[in-house]
Amino acid sequence: MAQRHHDLTDPAAGTSAKLSAPPPLAATPERGDPREQGGTPTGDALAGYLRSQATDFLRALRLHRETGGTTGGAEDSVDAVRALRRTARRISGSLHTFRPLLDPDWSEQIRPELAWLSGTLALEHAYGARLERLLLALHRLSGAAVVPVQAGAAVGGRAAGADPAPAKAGPAAPVQAPDRGNLTVGAAKAGALLDRQLTLARTRAHSTALQALGSSRFHAVADKVAVLASEVPLTPAAPTTDLRPFATAAEERLADSVTALPLVTAGNPYNAEALVHGLSPDPAPHPQDAPWHQARLLLRLHRYACEVLHGPATPLDVRLLTAGQALDRHRDASEAASAAAQAARTPRIAPATAYALGVLHADQRHEVEAARYAFQRSWPKQTFTPS
Amino acid sequence: MAQRHHDLTDPAAGTSAKLSAPPPLAATPERGDPREQGGTPTGDALAGYLRSQATDFLRALRLHRETGGTTGGAEDSVDAVRALRRTARRISGSLHTFRPLLDPDWSEQIRPELAWLSGTLALEHAYGARLERLLLALHRLSGAAVVPVQAGAAVGGRAAGADPAPAKAGPAAPVQAPDRGNLTVGAAKAGALLDRQLTLARTRAHSTALQALGSSRFHAVADKVAVLASEVPLTPAAPTTDLRPFATAAEERLADSVTALPLVTAGNPYNAEALVHGLSPDPAPHPQDAPWHQARLLLRLHRYACEVLHGPATPLDVRLLTAGQALDRHRDASEAASAAAQAARTPRIAPATAYALGVLHADQRHEVEAARYAFQRSWPKQTFTPS
Repeated sequence: MAQRHHDLTDPAAGTSAKLSAPPPLAATPERGDPREQGGTPTGDALAGYLRSQATDFLRALRLHRETGGTTGGAEDSVDAVRALRRTARRISGSLHTFRPLLDPDWSEQIRPELAWLSGTLALEHAYGARLERLLLALHRLSGAAVVPVQAGAAVGGRAAGADPAPAKAGPAAPVQAPDRGNLTVGAAKAGALLDRQLTLARTRAHSTALQALGSSRFHAVADKVAVLASEVPLTPAAPTTDLRPFATAAEERLADSVTALPLVTAGNPYNAEALVHGLSPDPAPHPQDAPWHQARLLLRLHRYACEVLHGPATPLDVRLLTAGQALDRHRDASEAASAAAQAARTPRIAPATAYALGVLHADQRHEVEAARYAFQRSWPKQTFTPS
Repeated sequence: MAQRHHDLTDPAAGTSAKLSAPPPLAATPERGDPREQGGTPTGDALAGYLRSQATDFLRALRLHRETGGTTGGAEDSVDAVRALRRTARRISGSLHTFRPLLDPDWSEQIRPELAWLSGTLALEHAYGARLERLLLALHRLSGAAVVPVQAGAAVGGRAAGADPAPAKAGPAAPVQAPDRGNLTVGAAKAGALLDRQLTLARTRAHSTALQALGSSRFHAVADKVAVLASEVPLTPAAPTTDLRPFATAAEERLADSVTALPLVTAGNPYNAEALVHGLSPDPAPHPQDAPWHQARLLLRLHRYACEVLHGPATPLDVRLLTAGQALDRHRDASEAASAAAQAARTPRIAPATAYALGVLHADQRHEVEAARYAFQRSWPKQTFTPS
């Protein structure tokens, strides 16, 4: 992939360029927008950004080792893993966006390793967040007050004992005694089933992450990042090359992916699009979600490119922030809906459990639709007619 | 109930007032707005409207008898029953809105009988429409092309064989062979179950309607309507009493009921309000739906009052029409969701069937939410901040 852009930079550049002095326009959290200081962001700013991220990576790794890591030494350990993921993603993303400015062999070697690392470290958190989302939804759907639940805790009892919210008006619905607890028991059982399945998945992801962090593969990555903290393998021409065309290209890739999204439909509330495959023979993930996931990744790359150019502390355009949150919510709801559908395929579950999982699946697919609507609202209108 | 308004009219009026000549301002389909002719709509216009509706009722009854009625002589018979319901509702509604202008004993006697009749006659159609709505939704949720299905026809096979709609972009979802047909079989079984249950309910409603139309109770109603077609039991003061204050009061009752609706929430798309009790221990109907159903009935009474004042052919304000359609859709989706939940309580169903019914229930509850949104959009903004 990097070959395509080789003509943009020195084709002879194949070895690391050493940079010992800090680049003049390095965007650090303290410095803000280099353009405000009259400069054009060049490869030097990229080198500064990469060094800063590498330093943060190493600090997080030290924290992780100090807090033990093995059993999740509570918050510090979680923070350390999050910082490892965060910096790995930023380094990997910047290498992608600005790859013609970097030694291609080195870049192509470290990028998949960083992707493997951030992917592996992300899973534990993802399973925990998914479970929490689903248990919260089950509570909401049971008419219980929405209270934050501890992911992994048994919630069945609470759901089963919850009183429905008071009726707003009108006659109370007739209560048929034998049915009364039926579906609520279903919600409780569905919650217990999801808890079992996702807690198991999370535990496995935790072990996998710990194994990964102790592996020689990880040590090789860490060694490379340690080198990056002091010397960034830029191409010879890179230090004075303008970064903006590469950032603009990243922004255009994002814009193109957004243009390809069905935004007119998404902006039309209750279009019932997200649940169209709710009972189709294809298992999740829904293929219709893929372009949205793609836009989410490209928005992230765009954000990182902005950080490189303007400094990580420069606040992002609030609309881009909202758009990114909508796409995160889209991804989370999509995966939660899949988990509910997957749980419903567990053999020998009770019909009431399956029913609750069906309601839950549809609820999360509507969250998907809601997230698309929110994204459409946040995105600057240009190429389509707003609803 | 009529006693409350006795002071508005002649308290001595307790017998029928004969009206042999057509009232000068009777709003007939041909005449249009009496106010355009310079007149004030009075009790005479009400008498004309009631006579006209009673005549239509008798015509429909004759048509029903001619088409046999017993086995549903296809379209004519359906039309006849619909016209009977339609006129019974209008007579009953007008007696309610303008009750101080009518002999109270007579009015209080015939109104519950007309309500019984229109309620009984409505059920067969309602079950058929509910089944059609649910089968269409199952098709949509299976990713099949939405084609009108014949309610009562077996649709399982079609849903099972349907291909999912082509993916817009991105990699195809991995297909796990053993799961492939699972939920689709669930959709097919859910469709078959709903078909059985709602077709049975419809058949019973058909028999009940036929029994009702052959009963002495019905003949007593029909005799009263026959009298109404020639003489309307107005109070002595009614022929010259202005109808507008009564119509205004009906409009205000509607406005009050709409003001009490959670319109700010409804106008906020994807508020997830309609499914809040999706898994609550209370069986359907959801108590939160009641105020919307009430607004629907009051909107209907307002519409009939407009017909009395301006003539049945005067087109209704398009926003009121849209609002009424939204409330109809709200009612239909609410009852369809209940039917899906009810079907899920059938003993010994397969988990896949229950799952499909859960998805279907949630889908219809989102239709409820969508209908509230549509209503909010159609309703003239006055007392709340639009979203």
